[in-house]
Amino acid sequence: MLTVFGSTALDTIRTPKKKLTNVLGGAATFAAISASNFVDTGLIAVVGKDFPKRYHDILSKYLDIRGLSIEKGKTFRYDGSYDNTLSTRSTLKTELNVLEDFNPKVPEVYKNSQFVYLANNDPEQNISLIKEFDKVKFSMCDTIDFWISTKRDSVIKMIKMVDAVVINDEEAKFLTKEFNLIKCAKKMMQWGAKYVIIKKGEHGSLMFYDDVIFPTAGFSLEDVVDPTGAGDSFAGAMIGYLANKKSTNLSNIKKAIVYGNVLGSFAVENYGLKGLLKIKKGDIAKRIKIYEKMIRF
Amino acid sequence: MLTVFGSTALDTIRTPKKKLTNVLGGAATFAAISASNFVDTGLIAVVGKDFPKRYHDILSKYLDIRGLSIEKGKTFRYDGSYDNTLSTRSTLKTELNVLEDFNPKVPEVYKNSQFVYLANNDPEQNISLIKEFDKVKFSMCDTIDFWISTKRDSVIKMIKMVDAVVINDEEAKFLTKEFNLIKCAKKMMQWGAKYVIIKKGEHGSLMFYDDVIFPTAGFSLEDVVDPTGAGDSFAGAMIGYLANKKSTNLSNIKKAIVYGNVLGSFAVENYGLKGLLKIKKGDIAKRIKIYEKMIRF
Repeated sequence: MLTVFGSTALDTIRTPKKKLTNVLGGAATFAAISASNFVDTGLIAVVGKDFPKRYHDILSKYLDIRGLSIEKGKTFRYDGSYDNTLSTRSTLKTELNVLEDFNPKVPEVYKNSQFVYLANNDPEQNISLIKEFDKVKFSMCDTIDFWISTKRDSVIKMIKMVDAVVINDEEAKFLTKEFNLIKCAKKMMQWGAKYVIIKKGEHGSLMFYDDVIFPTAGFSLEDVVDPTGAGDSFAGAMIGYLANKKSTNLSNIKKAIVYGNVLGSFAVENYGLKGLLKIKKGDIAKRIKIYEKMIRF
Repeated sequence: MLTVFGSTALDTIRTPKKKLTNVLGGAATFAAISASNFVDTGLIAVVGKDFPKRYHDILSKYLDIRGLSIEKGKTFRYDGSYDNTLSTRSTLKTELNVLEDFNPKVPEVYKNSQFVYLANNDPEQNISLIKEFDKVKFSMCDTIDFWISTKRDSVIKMIKMVDAVVINDEEAKFLTKEFNLIKCAKKMMQWGAKYVIIKKGEHGSLMFYDDVIFPTAGFSLEDVVDPTGAGDSFAGAMIGYLANKKSTNLSNIKKAIVYGNVLGSFAVENYGLKGLLKIKKGDIAKRIKIYEKMIRF
């Protein structure tokens, strides 16, 4: 089983073509639903009393939500706006709401999880949470500029405690104060990460392990409408694939990253979670085949 | 035989670590020397009376320079400065000098070239030059923002006349007024290009042909010191490889692009032309093997 911990949100997303208000989002939501294509996935997150029933239904359809707390107050809200290129997002508003004082509990049934993903979240919460799992075989975390700015030391401490870091290129540079992505990865490995996966959006990703570098090209798409959650879907698919294989040998790590690229591509071609929710049986395998054919020479 | 037409320059390059003054450069210089690893390459270019003998010796060591004119006046000069990330360059000065009134002539011995590369240069000059070749099997051009700003219609006309366009991502967007690279490529194909190759610097490239997309990851390097000429080295290697194979089937086009990535990687790991000039027998094949191993999963 896989456990995903992190934020579930009500997002307002502004793209050049459309504005979505209070749609279901959050790093853990995207990651967990993406992972659920591969393995039974439990979610640890918190929402407020205002969390719509239809979103609750979506979560419970795809996930084990015994770790989902419903607290008095409002759900975490995020409001962001993309520019014309869809590659730069500016944050208009972040309301932590129930997230602020959340004291996450790991349900007993989750404690045996061998795979744990700490989606972007307060690194101190992540550090205390990961300690509650007794049988972790592979743990992975993400982070963003907000935590790097406010709690850099805790981010580094969190990196020490997990097996793998998955992080955006710009955030990797910001965190490590390096410009070259190989230098960024080496620094994170010095801090204790065994694997570093740097996400580069449409340009794919770079994975680092020991002296191995594994670059992948992105899955090329003509109609990208909303990049929200693509990186989270990438990470969720990656750890979901590994949890399914129950193995983290290098060959499986590489394949997991290819699945990450592909799930990210599903995420961006529709608004909000819709891209992930539309995936039907066989769609993933089909796209993996297309990708393999695409990059062959 | 391959003919490369374009600029030979005396470059001033400012990187965070080093300033190089009046070093041998120019799009055609990089492309032709890169191509010369694969096939006999003739250069059509112009320099001034001030062009140093040692640079002339370098050109004549690697290339057929019967197409090199030495005119009264000064050699084309370019002065540019890279930022700390080495990914953004600002132009400080461009002195066209002898380039301005250059009336390129194709030596009789070059006229049988089946492969012709129009390196970044005045699109009108490129258009009139390509007409002088009788037996062209495969022609390719590049362009930059300067020509797109000043002679966009001629750039489009030039694209109609060649088989392949190789162009940077930012310039592809600027030229086509599209944001998505697939949309950019489709527009250039509508204009008449059979193949479109979009270079993405460290992120590799995308090749488009009919409904085929071929993405490649870049060759990851930790120590990039000077990106000058990387794109030209990419293009030169690509067409040089094809000229050597005397074939432009899709499989060879894809391989040619991988060679392009690899020659670009040699270019950036030393200052100016030094990266290309240091290549020894076997180095390219070795790096191709490393690349193939790197991306395998």
